[in-house]
Amino acid sequence: MQSAVSSGSSLKADSVSVLRSITPNLVYTKHKGQAGKIAVVGGCREYTGAPYFAAISALKIGADLSHVFCTKDAGSVIKSYSPELIVHPVLEESYCIRDEDRSSVSAKVMAEVDKWMDRFDCLVVGPGLGRDPFLLECVSNIIRHARKCNLPMVIDGDGLFLVTHCLDLVRGYPLAVLTPNLNEYKRLVQAVLTSEVDEEDEAEQLKALVKGIGGVTVLRKGETDLICDGKTVNSVSTYGSPRRCGGQGDILSGSVAVFLCWARQCADLGELYPTNPTVLGCIAGSTLLRKAAALAFENKGRSTLTGDIIEYLGRSLEELCPHC
Amino acid sequence: MQSAVSSGSSLKADSVSVLRSITPNLVYTKHKGQAGKIAVVGGCREYTGAPYFAAISALKIGADLSHVFCTKDAGSVIKSYSPELIVHPVLEESYCIRDEDRSSVSAKVMAEVDKWMDRFDCLVVGPGLGRDPFLLECVSNIIRHARKCNLPMVIDGDGLFLVTHCLDLVRGYPLAVLTPNLNEYKRLVQAVLTSEVDEEDEAEQLKALVKGIGGVTVLRKGETDLICDGKTVNSVSTYGSPRRCGGQGDILSGSVAVFLCWARQCADLGELYPTNPTVLGCIAGSTLLRKAAALAFENKGRSTLTGDIIEYLGRSLEELCPHC
Repeated sequence: MQSAVSSGSSLKADSVSVLRSITPNLVYTKHKGQAGKIAVVGGCREYTGAPYFAAISALKIGADLSHVFCTKDAGSVIKSYSPELIVHPVLEESYCIRDEDRSSVSAKVMAEVDKWMDRFDCLVVGPGLGRDPFLLECVSNIIRHARKCNLPMVIDGDGLFLVTHCLDLVRGYPLAVLTPNLNEYKRLVQAVLTSEVDEEDEAEQLKALVKGIGGVTVLRKGETDLICDGKTVNSVSTYGSPRRCGGQGDILSGSVAVFLCWARQCADLGELYPTNPTVLGCIAGSTLLRKAAALAFENKGRSTLTGDIIEYLGRSLEELCPHC
Repeated sequence: MQSAVSSGSSLKADSVSVLRSITPNLVYTKHKGQAGKIAVVGGCREYTGAPYFAAISALKIGADLSHVFCTKDAGSVIKSYSPELIVHPVLEESYCIRDEDRSSVSAKVMAEVDKWMDRFDCLVVGPGLGRDPFLLECVSNIIRHARKCNLPMVIDGDGLFLVTHCLDLVRGYPLAVLTPNLNEYKRLVQAVLTSEVDEEDEAEQLKALVKGIGGVTVLRKGETDLICDGKTVNSVSTYGSPRRCGGQGDILSGSVAVFLCWARQCADLGELYPTNPTVLGCIAGSTLLRKAAALAFENKGRSTLTGDIIEYLGRSLEELCPHC
């Protein structure tokens, strides 16, 4: 599963083998839903692109159904990006509701999300969520409820802002994956370890961070992606692109969500590895995004946008893992 | 930087060399935002295409993040054009607000914009702004605030209408670039020099205009683009297209915004030229648009639209400045 090449105290993952080992065969006997049902919680007055990118990426990688839970304002716009998504415009922001209605609205939001929760294989929390306090309060309840349902969660963007300020939401939950970029990672390290980022000993600090949060998996994005569940630190540095346009993190969150489902299906079937399936999902998700970004960059150069990378997800997966 | 070929009293810029010298290398160590964060202020009930063209052009040229600040009406439409943009529907027009609410609404608009101001590298003010008096009052405050933050600004379209009627908004601000077309230029000349356009001695009159406004840079669009910061007058007449479809000025404003960031980054790194980085940004922005317009016209002829030109920005930049 992992090569013996050690880079500092992290293991350079044989990431293409990991991806191949957890990607399910395409067979005609399966029915809708078995390749994964993903839901993205995000999308508000300001942000509509991010949840779209995460949700459509999940479909393009091979999930069967992709839902988005967003605010009313964001709903029509996200729907207009693609008829492939199922969009629930059920979240609310403070500016739309009166103070005295907060608890009833909050209960209503939870009831709407609750109806669906046990139909999903993985939740992506955060792309384009925004930072409205009432919205974040509702999303905290969604996270608590998802934990009760043992639902894996990928937490990114403003979801990380929320979790960094309320670590108890994920503390000790092994099915949570946090996917911080450089700045989000800095804030996590400050919150958990009350220190600065140690660039000399990245792997050890990441391990300490994960232990400090207790039992989650962290995928730290960067020139090299580092993945740690508290026991091992794996690195993925294959492929990649020098283009840093906004939105690539959203693709990653959707990608990790799908591979998490698939890795867990392998684990459930007893095709088990000595490795945590959550870690495998992260390795595969990172590898696929990096491959698609590389292909898009080869073709579009400096003008590569996130939408271009999404268009290469299918071909990238096919090249890494040809279907038989 | 400039060839010795003098055309009247303007210097014909060696514009491709300028473009190459300020375009940053694509390297894997950079993180999101370092290639530029642009914001367009524009988009109202009537106009939604212009701010989209400016903002998406910035991304296609290589900026990492592109925001739009527009009215509520325009927001959903601009969002729906592309999930790549971050659209803030926070501006207001007179017809939506009561007279007695003007000052509170104005304060709210400023507060919304203010939250973001120090995250941007350049502001584009004017594409599709419209001429609603209340909206223009708010935008005047945004310009004043941007000056306090030392934020470079490209001012085009209805932003020029505003500035022509209130020259103090930009007077003495060296980080302001005005990009008038023929008619906008006429009105500026009338307002500042109280005279007609002198076609015989364009360069000298442009210098006088810039000195009259005091310290800004003017990019006068035309068959030949003229760029003046009060000291030198550079001309760009390479490439170009005979097609005059509306919207090309919006591409130019986004293009100049990106190259302004890049030129200022070079200047900050000490890779300094004897020339004002603002002037270099204008030369490069003009050159790229003209190249993309020429390529689009070669392929689409008379039916070339602004969207077609945008599709050639990437290839044009690659041809002018191949990435290594």
